[in-house]
Amino acid sequence: MSLLPDRVAATARATVAPVARRLHALGVTANAVTVVGFLVTVAGATLLASGQPGLAFVLLAIGTLGDTIDGQLARAAGGGTRFGAFLDSTLDRLSDAALAIAAVHLGATAPHVVLYWSGLLLLVASFLVSYIRAKAESLNAGASMGLAPRESRIVLYLGGVGVWALSGIFDVFVATVVVLGLLATVTVAQRIAYLAINLSAKKG
Amino acid sequence: MSLLPDRVAATARATVAPVARRLHALGVTANAVTVVGFLVTVAGATLLASGQPGLAFVLLAIGTLGDTIDGQLARAAGGGTRFGAFLDSTLDRLSDAALAIAAVHLGATAPHVVLYWSGLLLLVASFLVSYIRAKAESLNAGASMGLAPRESRIVLYLGGVGVWALSGIFDVFVATVVVLGLLATVTVAQRIAYLAINLSAKKG
Repeated sequence: MSLLPDRVAATARATVAPVARRLHALGVTANAVTVVGFLVTVAGATLLASGQPGLAFVLLAIGTLGDTIDGQLARAAGGGTRFGAFLDSTLDRLSDAALAIAAVHLGATAPHVVLYWSGLLLLVASFLVSYIRAKAESLNAGASMGLAPRESRIVLYLGGVGVWALSGIFDVFVATVVVLGLLATVTVAQRIAYLAINLSAKKG
Repeated sequence: MSLLPDRVAATARATVAPVARRLHALGVTANAVTVVGFLVTVAGATLLASGQPGLAFVLLAIGTLGDTIDGQLARAAGGGTRFGAFLDSTLDRLSDAALAIAAVHLGATAPHVVLYWSGLLLLVASFLVSYIRAKAESLNAGASMGLAPRESRIVLYLGGVGVWALSGIFDVFVATVVVLGLLATVTVAQRIAYLAINLSAKKG
């Protein structure tokens, strides 16, 4: 079960497909889009941390689109490299960290204790969600399920920033980060419980 | 090249070997020691975050010993399970996070801008050091090298807390966290550079 219907993700991919084909024709590589998309996301997170949700929303939305395009570009180029897959995953972790740190920093400077601790919880839990999957795969098991995978978390985060920007109500963003921190924590618990059952055999 | 000589780690392991054998004879499992050691470390980090470096040092040292003992207990029990290896790695990440968050929180409440940002850098970079290794292993490559692996980082951190406790000079701890954040960042860069060379083949 996932919060975000598969159809939403499929529609997003279909929308950016023509963009990916055009970029490929222009000679743009998947790794270049990965790096530029990451830098745009960090710029958006920096604007958010300084209390500018409107501009931040625009940059974060562009950065997220870049994240959908790079995989399609890799496929258009006849399949990505293992380093491309590694670079994409590593910069995804840094993007997640930038979004969570923007929340932590807003919480530390407002000051807003709930936002501060929820941001730290989100930072640690979203890292663990990804670490657990990579670690499980290195032990020849999988752990890709969970209530709040990365796509759902980013859509929710963007929604919270967008509503804050339009309404001017900061507490909408605070509530979003609280929910995201809890969802990521539940996802961590789900994956650990799954692996407790599926990794109980002796080491090979 | 590593900051901590292999001899130091080997000596630590030899010192706790009799303890591990006695615990095994008493029926204590490796996973139990892993979980208890983790909880002691979190208690130490909480004391540190509230500005009590002396008590924190004692608990953090005990938690770190637990981390050395669990592997030996698993071997004494005839080899650990894959879930034991997974649980140990995941709680190591949470211990690392607790130590870094103690620094972030001291920086946010002091307030001390350098400590705050260095703590956040340490939090993200030490997570990435471990994530990159797990991700590389899931892609059938290795990336265990680097200037500052986990054992070295914990010994340095403990040293900083200990000197702060004995001297009362907070800046010793600040300097330690700054150095650790930079060392972990260099380790991340080393591993990415290594994998850029060793993961350039097409996906299998």
